[in-house]
Amino acid sequence: MPTISQRGEQMPPSPIRKLVPYAEAAKKKGTKVYHLNIGQPDIETPKQMLDAVRHSDFKILEYSHSAGNESYRRKLVEYYNRFNISVTHEQIIVTTGGSEAIVFGFMACLDPGDEIIVPEPFYANYNGFAIEAEVKIKTITSSIDTGFALPAMADFEKAITPKTKALLICNPNNPTGYLYSKEEMEVLKELCLKYNLFLFSDEAYREFCYSGTHFSAMNLEGLEENVILMDTISKRYSACGARLGAFVTKNQAVLNAAMKLAQARLSPPSFAQIAAEAAVDLPLDYFDSIKAEYQSRRDILVQMLNEIPGVYSPNPGGAFYAMAKLPIDDADKFCQWILESFSFEGQTVMMAPGTGFYATPGLGKDEVRLAYVLNQDDIRHAMVCLAEALKVYPGNTSK
Amino acid sequence: MPTISQRGEQMPPSPIRKLVPYAEAAKKKGTKVYHLNIGQPDIETPKQMLDAVRHSDFKILEYSHSAGNESYRRKLVEYYNRFNISVTHEQIIVTTGGSEAIVFGFMACLDPGDEIIVPEPFYANYNGFAIEAEVKIKTITSSIDTGFALPAMADFEKAITPKTKALLICNPNNPTGYLYSKEEMEVLKELCLKYNLFLFSDEAYREFCYSGTHFSAMNLEGLEENVILMDTISKRYSACGARLGAFVTKNQAVLNAAMKLAQARLSPPSFAQIAAEAAVDLPLDYFDSIKAEYQSRRDILVQMLNEIPGVYSPNPGGAFYAMAKLPIDDADKFCQWILESFSFEGQTVMMAPGTGFYATPGLGKDEVRLAYVLNQDDIRHAMVCLAEALKVYPGNTSK
Repeated sequence: MPTISQRGEQMPPSPIRKLVPYAEAAKKKGTKVYHLNIGQPDIETPKQMLDAVRHSDFKILEYSHSAGNESYRRKLVEYYNRFNISVTHEQIIVTTGGSEAIVFGFMACLDPGDEIIVPEPFYANYNGFAIEAEVKIKTITSSIDTGFALPAMADFEKAITPKTKALLICNPNNPTGYLYSKEEMEVLKELCLKYNLFLFSDEAYREFCYSGTHFSAMNLEGLEENVILMDTISKRYSACGARLGAFVTKNQAVLNAAMKLAQARLSPPSFAQIAAEAAVDLPLDYFDSIKAEYQSRRDILVQMLNEIPGVYSPNPGGAFYAMAKLPIDDADKFCQWILESFSFEGQTVMMAPGTGFYATPGLGKDEVRLAYVLNQDDIRHAMVCLAEALKVYPGNTSK
Repeated sequence: MPTISQRGEQMPPSPIRKLVPYAEAAKKKGTKVYHLNIGQPDIETPKQMLDAVRHSDFKILEYSHSAGNESYRRKLVEYYNRFNISVTHEQIIVTTGGSEAIVFGFMACLDPGDEIIVPEPFYANYNGFAIEAEVKIKTITSSIDTGFALPAMADFEKAITPKTKALLICNPNNPTGYLYSKEEMEVLKELCLKYNLFLFSDEAYREFCYSGTHFSAMNLEGLEENVILMDTISKRYSACGARLGAFVTKNQAVLNAAMKLAQARLSPPSFAQIAAEAAVDLPLDYFDSIKAEYQSRRDILVQMLNEIPGVYSPNPGGAFYAMAKLPIDDADKFCQWILESFSFEGQTVMMAPGTGFYATPGLGKDEVRLAYVLNQDDIRHAMVCLAEALKVYPGNTSK
């Protein structure tokens, strides 16, 4: 029997999904499981988007342009202009999810063995995309004690080697919720210019900023040739299943290379482009209530977390995630235990172990990521469960 | 300014799409262009598929399972059973187009530098996927004079090296339309067993066989651990824009590796899965009229081609492509010239130059690929144009 590739062996299993069998077993026992483990929002997808698809009347579901429908790309120009991001429709390639935009960036800009520096904790799937592209993720550590602020410039410089081709940030951040300031973005700019690096900016959560305002990498003056924006509509409109994102850059050589990658896979999904084009015409106040809802959830979650003895969670500025430090021996064990061996009033909670978001061995062992994608009551119940669980967890380190 | 990757440089531009600017210019001059260059069928997507999406009533466009909705995978089991392909829903990963199934296969089974043997001419995008995966496509030549039958076993054996990990076929074939016989499939089986190779089988055109019946690689007894089926609904239901395919294998290690690739990109598109699930319930005679229509088109195209002096096209057994040998100096020049400098009664024709489907330099220079995806009248008009064009083309070699 032929054997699979080393690449296939090395691909990491999803740290977010690996606990699913334990959650399923808990549900089979009749336990209610609060899913704070995954960024699947409970917010309804805007009706206008779904209606645009439901009321469509084409007869052939054709390939679109490999870069996406021109009409949609022109709409996206309008969308980005609202954030003072000035691009043309020819600087946008519509992708199959933000995932594909990230892969296009890695492949168009890096060769096997080249390195990308990412502050950790970081979105775990960057690891998988790096292995697919045969490039290396090198991390520098941000600390929960500073709320996961950008590490010092010196830390980046220590990690830079002749193989370093890019810096990668997610802003606001998944998993930390940290919102990078204009000053921090300027540090990244300085690094990119000094060391001739690309800046990959994953801005999937642009709309969801609660403390401070979002400063896009696209607005770093003088860095136009270095910046690649990796975007998605998944979280913006609670449309994760659309699988629609965007690869945006002013660097023509990068665009040309990404376009060849786009042509090889023919086109992004057509139904989703119809929905996404309609989304740009949503009333401008559409996000007000959504943001207010997420902010209330954040406030409840973070407050209740910090009220639990031995727990600390910095207040995240954006996205819909919070990292929390718990008084536990091992986050993987704890997250499994709370599903497998614990319930409180017939309920328990599913979280993502912190370890999955760090590359440095040992880090994140006392941290978990919580996605506040459930309604306020559910979040309250989940936090009560967590507090009760910590009281009886055999590996509680504060006892 | 940072520079793009060598991989980005090496990615080939689409040989099918590179003539688009000339076609656009011809249309601007008022010339009608018959598009025989690309496999975008003019057949309507089944109404039942579009209606399933249009009548859907979910409120959140969620991620699906990374392997695709279980309900859809169970339907696919039913679909494959009709071809005596016996698989379980757990042996299927729903992909974003056939393209992603091919990439999953390359990445799960091969490491950088490993080799795949493909009979040429071959589907040009395999080149792009190989460059993405940093693997090598090695070709052995099939000839238009034998109708593009499978090259001899000895030809394969000459090409096999210690780096060879897989054979790749497209059956029925794009671009040749050749339908591999059971005997030819057995040769591939023998090779795979003897040299411990994977067999990647792209069966995008399974339904469209006119001369002979389709023999799936999945039905090669004793080769279960070697075969990976790469599938798509694009051509089957004229649903290219759905971007929905399937990766199917009984090899558990390969499935596990592909599943990790699938988890990294989260899920295949959700709208498309609704449409595709409905498609499996189409009446079983749905393909009868579609097949009859394609067969009539093939018959007209091939007959008219062979009536042109100096032109030869073997009769393709399946898919909806034909390769034709023309009395020309250079297919790339000719395909550009016919758009740029020729029209007959205000009409011209767009074809794909043969060179784009060969890896061996010089091959395909007097060949073109024609996709019979237009109605019979349009095909007749296109063939008249082609005949007239050859009469006046300055590079006609038969003069």
